[in-house]
Amino acid sequence: MENELTKVSVDAMGGDNAPLEIVKGAVEAVNESDKIKVFLVGKEEVLNETLKSFEYDKSRIEVVNATEEITCDDSPVAAVRTKTDSSISVALRLVKEGQADAFVSAGSTGAVLVGAQLIVGKIKGVERSPLAPLIPTRKGYALLIDCGANVDARSSHLVQFAKMGSIYMRDVFGIKNPRVAIVNVGLEEEKGNKLVKETYPLLKDCDDINFIGSIEAREIPNDFADVIVCDAFVGNVILKLYEGLGKTLIGMVKESIKSSFISKIGGLLIKKKLKMALANMSSDAYGGAPMLGLNGLVIKTHGSSKAIEVKNSILQCISFKEQNITEKFKQNLVQN
Amino acid sequence: MENELTKVSVDAMGGDNAPLEIVKGAVEAVNESDKIKVFLVGKEEVLNETLKSFEYDKSRIEVVNATEEITCDDSPVAAVRTKTDSSISVALRLVKEGQADAFVSAGSTGAVLVGAQLIVGKIKGVERSPLAPLIPTRKGYALLIDCGANVDARSSHLVQFAKMGSIYMRDVFGIKNPRVAIVNVGLEEEKGNKLVKETYPLLKDCDDINFIGSIEAREIPNDFADVIVCDAFVGNVILKLYEGLGKTLIGMVKESIKSSFISKIGGLLIKKKLKMALANMSSDAYGGAPMLGLNGLVIKTHGSSKAIEVKNSILQCISFKEQNITEKFKQNLVQN
Repeated sequence: MENELTKVSVDAMGGDNAPLEIVKGAVEAVNESDKIKVFLVGKEEVLNETLKSFEYDKSRIEVVNATEEITCDDSPVAAVRTKTDSSISVALRLVKEGQADAFVSAGSTGAVLVGAQLIVGKIKGVERSPLAPLIPTRKGYALLIDCGANVDARSSHLVQFAKMGSIYMRDVFGIKNPRVAIVNVGLEEEKGNKLVKETYPLLKDCDDINFIGSIEAREIPNDFADVIVCDAFVGNVILKLYEGLGKTLIGMVKESIKSSFISKIGGLLIKKKLKMALANMSSDAYGGAPMLGLNGLVIKTHGSSKAIEVKNSILQCISFKEQNITEKFKQNLVQN
Repeated sequence: MENELTKVSVDAMGGDNAPLEIVKGAVEAVNESDKIKVFLVGKEEVLNETLKSFEYDKSRIEVVNATEEITCDDSPVAAVRTKTDSSISVALRLVKEGQADAFVSAGSTGAVLVGAQLIVGKIKGVERSPLAPLIPTRKGYALLIDCGANVDARSSHLVQFAKMGSIYMRDVFGIKNPRVAIVNVGLEEEKGNKLVKETYPLLKDCDDINFIGSIEAREIPNDFADVIVCDAFVGNVILKLYEGLGKTLIGMVKESIKSSFISKIGGLLIKKKLKMALANMSSDAYGGAPMLGLNGLVIKTHGSSKAIEVKNSILQCISFKEQNITEKFKQNLVQN
């Protein structure tokens, strides 16, 4: 039975709401699925104290002590190298040593990305390990791959992103024959910058993905593709503009509602429906961003994560393990 | 007096709403400002017929016959070369020959971009002529430069974009000491892809612009900078995501309002305030996108332009001429 559990090491000290929301998310994950075991990594006494107020199966949450913390002010590379007893380093070593299948953190993105590569390491044959958040669309969500720290990608990287993203969406999220598209400035095959022009024919030649061609940025929110491939610079621009513009527009709607007595009443009447509609556009529901192509799964959640996002990130790891994604990555990327 | 007029040649056949909305926009511009003269370029008999229903100063709208039309299905390069009697080609020649100061079109973006370079030509010393739309922000608008057709830019191009954009925002839109920022994936100077890392120190060294550093995409809607510099691939992604996400979110708000009787009533109560708030986020108010660095001004408006956008685009040309922007571009780009 112990062997069938998906074991997740969780950085209990990372993020704006640590440790309380992280601990709460871990407890909720364990209570929701009996397939999960969590290693809560961080300051032992703090975590044991925090856990006291929750009810859960004691055999499936284990506190692992880590005395140091990496903050967003630390240089990621230096922090991972020198703070070897930080919650991120200790938790990643659990994955490296095979004690955990996956790692979840709301901590410093830089440290997670660097630590994952240095400690867990890439699958042999994987050139780059992309960070691939799920972005909300009108009808659901799409995997935006890559939004990581390595900009200036090569076409061979993008091809691997397309393959890994495709497997992930199919086997972790159950999307049949996921549609793969490359971000471009037009739909015609001859459009694009140097990187896209080089990559397009390579994607077209892949038998093992459902490549549907280019996607213009205006179609991204429109449920046009399931796996959206781009280099990390463009991915970061898309991801952050998504967040910024969504926030600005929703803020403007709210401000306009508050601006008069009449519109305030109107606001009360639409509140419930509006909330339901916009809930879809929130990333919390899907959990954090997986970092793919490593010897294990690493999931980075928002720094502002609450328990629900932590819980959903932990639960995502079950399919990853059960579907043997790492093995599929190896077969798919090496054989081609 | 004739000499002091700003003369604008207008592609009366381009865009989804041609010729009616284009003609109407031209008439409104002439009626609003006595500094404007318009050459309406297109099929003579159609335009004369359309003009009949409007009141305006007959001496300031002149129809110029052009028998051909370039459609969005035409290859831009071929169309500009072979359809020499198209409204775009004829109107651009008026600028080339100095009969008009500026050109406005809602027609094929590709044909306008190609035609502007081939027929009007770049100012000597300008390496690339960027297309720079105004994008709405929470408090106003910012110039996004470049969103044109030339991707794979070099750092020297981006430096020229920053200078031209700065002059344009200062002298055409009256923004004092416009803040210039470069699109990046983080705020630190060492962040970025190869292009951004090369360009950042060059911008920092420019004495004649107010360079404030990097801008992350999430801050773009937030009135963080007045001139936002990037290569055309990234610019196109930003511009189109702006349109797409705005449309999707506003659509979701509307759908949620329509989804029940109660929320419909609420919707009626907030309608006026909501409309006012979102009007800011509409591009119509500012007119079309200028293409800078040419021997004259070229303005590309949306294909779906109505009279108001055409009018505002034509009126933008007055400051461009009166402030002698072309001369300032020459001085600023050549001397450095």
